[in-house]
Amino acid sequence: MFQEKESIIKRPKNIDRLIKEFLQGKEWALSQLMSIIENNDDKAKSILNKLYPRLGHGWRIGITGPPGAGKSTLVEKLATEYVKNNLTVGIICIDPTSPFSGGAILGDRVRMSSLFLDPKVFIRSMATRGSMGGVAKATKELCDLLDAFKKDVIIIETIGVGQVELDVAGIGYTTIVVLVPEAGDSIQTMKAGLMEIGDIFVVNKSDREGSDRLTMEIQSVLEMKNFDLTPSVIKTVATENKGIKDLYNNIFDHRKFLENSDKLKDKIRSTIKTEIKELVEEKINKQIWANNQVKTKSDYLIDNILKGKETPFSAADKILKNWTKLRRKD
Amino acid sequence: MFQEKESIIKRPKNIDRLIKEFLQGKEWALSQLMSIIENNDDKAKSILNKLYPRLGHGWRIGITGPPGAGKSTLVEKLATEYVKNNLTVGIICIDPTSPFSGGAILGDRVRMSSLFLDPKVFIRSMATRGSMGGVAKATKELCDLLDAFKKDVIIIETIGVGQVELDVAGIGYTTIVVLVPEAGDSIQTMKAGLMEIGDIFVVNKSDREGSDRLTMEIQSVLEMKNFDLTPSVIKTVATENKGIKDLYNNIFDHRKFLENSDKLKDKIRSTIKTEIKELVEEKINKQIWANNQVKTKSDYLIDNILKGKETPFSAADKILKNWTKLRRKD
Repeated sequence: MFQEKESIIKRPKNIDRLIKEFLQGKEWALSQLMSIIENNDDKAKSILNKLYPRLGHGWRIGITGPPGAGKSTLVEKLATEYVKNNLTVGIICIDPTSPFSGGAILGDRVRMSSLFLDPKVFIRSMATRGSMGGVAKATKELCDLLDAFKKDVIIIETIGVGQVELDVAGIGYTTIVVLVPEAGDSIQTMKAGLMEIGDIFVVNKSDREGSDRLTMEIQSVLEMKNFDLTPSVIKTVATENKGIKDLYNNIFDHRKFLENSDKLKDKIRSTIKTEIKELVEEKINKQIWANNQVKTKSDYLIDNILKGKETPFSAADKILKNWTKLRRKD
Repeated sequence: MFQEKESIIKRPKNIDRLIKEFLQGKEWALSQLMSIIENNDDKAKSILNKLYPRLGHGWRIGITGPPGAGKSTLVEKLATEYVKNNLTVGIICIDPTSPFSGGAILGDRVRMSSLFLDPKVFIRSMATRGSMGGVAKATKELCDLLDAFKKDVIIIETIGVGQVELDVAGIGYTTIVVLVPEAGDSIQTMKAGLMEIGDIFVVNKSDREGSDRLTMEIQSVLEMKNFDLTPSVIKTVATENKGIKDLYNNIFDHRKFLENSDKLKDKIRSTIKTEIKELVEEKINKQIWANNQVKTKSDYLIDNILKGKETPFSAADKILKNWTKLRRKD
């Protein structure tokens, strides 16, 4: 055991070599590149830039829903179904930040353990501690990496139900909302904007009382809206593998629908647009604050704000004017 | 009833008039300005810019902790204590996004109802639906407004424990972390970075078993670190008003400590710096994407990415180069 650990630690982190081994399908290289991407922004860019031409293979599925809906079990069974059909699967689990539920969530992961030994399946947990804005970006990057690794299916499971989790689930081409027939859930769902993001709705634990009612409620809300493809509502009992095949088929149908219309192209186009926007803004913002004259000016203006001679708003205007002037002289 | 509603709707939203009435201490004007600030970014800037010279009066207190810790009751009792001492209070309650707990949270607000009729107290709930990054900014702006309204004390209560909530609680000059003697909480707390943000720790519901143990655990963690002012750990039973005076006094002590050292100035300086940074970046980013040549170039590059001739990374570089060239010609 110890020796194995040693060898991993001592392995030279030469990125070109990692990428070479990644391209040969070595999972340890995938793993290491994921860590690099999660931790180092500049290296992430150069890695993803190199691998970019390989993208476009894997189908991305986002799965979200309230805690206790049985998402992990559902993901496990769904992944098993893909493996049965000779497809490879990458799973990204987003653990939410909530410091007070950390323990429970780690326990959750254990339930997926049947998949850990399957060579067709790669599972990665991602903690969301730290910047919230960065979670969606990092998730997207890990998806890209799994895609470049030629995983056939990429599942993003979000454990949590905040806005970030909804955003992250939206990275999927097919977004699945998992609910359980518990009182109140249905009403909460309508409020939450979940009805807007779901391409497929799953009523899990459907052997429980109230599952028919919940199914009907979801369907009646969906009926009030216009869809090019009305989302299916599927009943499952994930623990007993019931309804998984139905879900599998529905994901396939949704994929076919997107691929045969302009929808998929539109979605990918808008993802690229966002990506470019973020890259450009990051660079220009870095340029501004790295400039020494801007720094000096900014410190001077802050002093003036503290003296009551300036406001942050007037200071921002002045910094911007100064910056524009500087650029012209360059 | 109907007539009253009518008159509110028809009231001309002339901002200068609103500001005038705001300056005369009219709460309805405060209320309306808050709504404007929450909803309209450009107007928010001009309002806050005008009111900026009035800032610096109110003491900002952030209160955070896990759901069920009794934060609302604590805030209610603490505010009552301030009122007793003839001080005015503004309270901002941040309701987290979580679509699945929406109902419970609204119920929470009812508990603070004893304060609603008090003319010295102004309560505002803020939902955090929508952009996460915007919550801290919006909270800061509402604080500024309450400050400009000359509230003596401004309490920010976050109901939720994600990263955003921690950030928001950090807007306070004095940050209070509220915990309850329930198993597991203490360990979770150490993990969560709450130990880093707390200026004062409150063990609420301290009549329950385990409160001594929790108090000692917190103290022993605090002892391992270096502080200029070691955070107090205070036991309260908010429902019975026990320990509230102690908390009140400790907040006062913490305030005196900050005011008599450079700490407060440092904190305000760094807040201003962040504010300017955000304003400058927002403006420059808007400028870039409003430029027609950038738009055309960007569309062209996205087409090339879809054709496999470009990556988002190379496209971003080209857009930036193009933008710089454009600026020089201006």
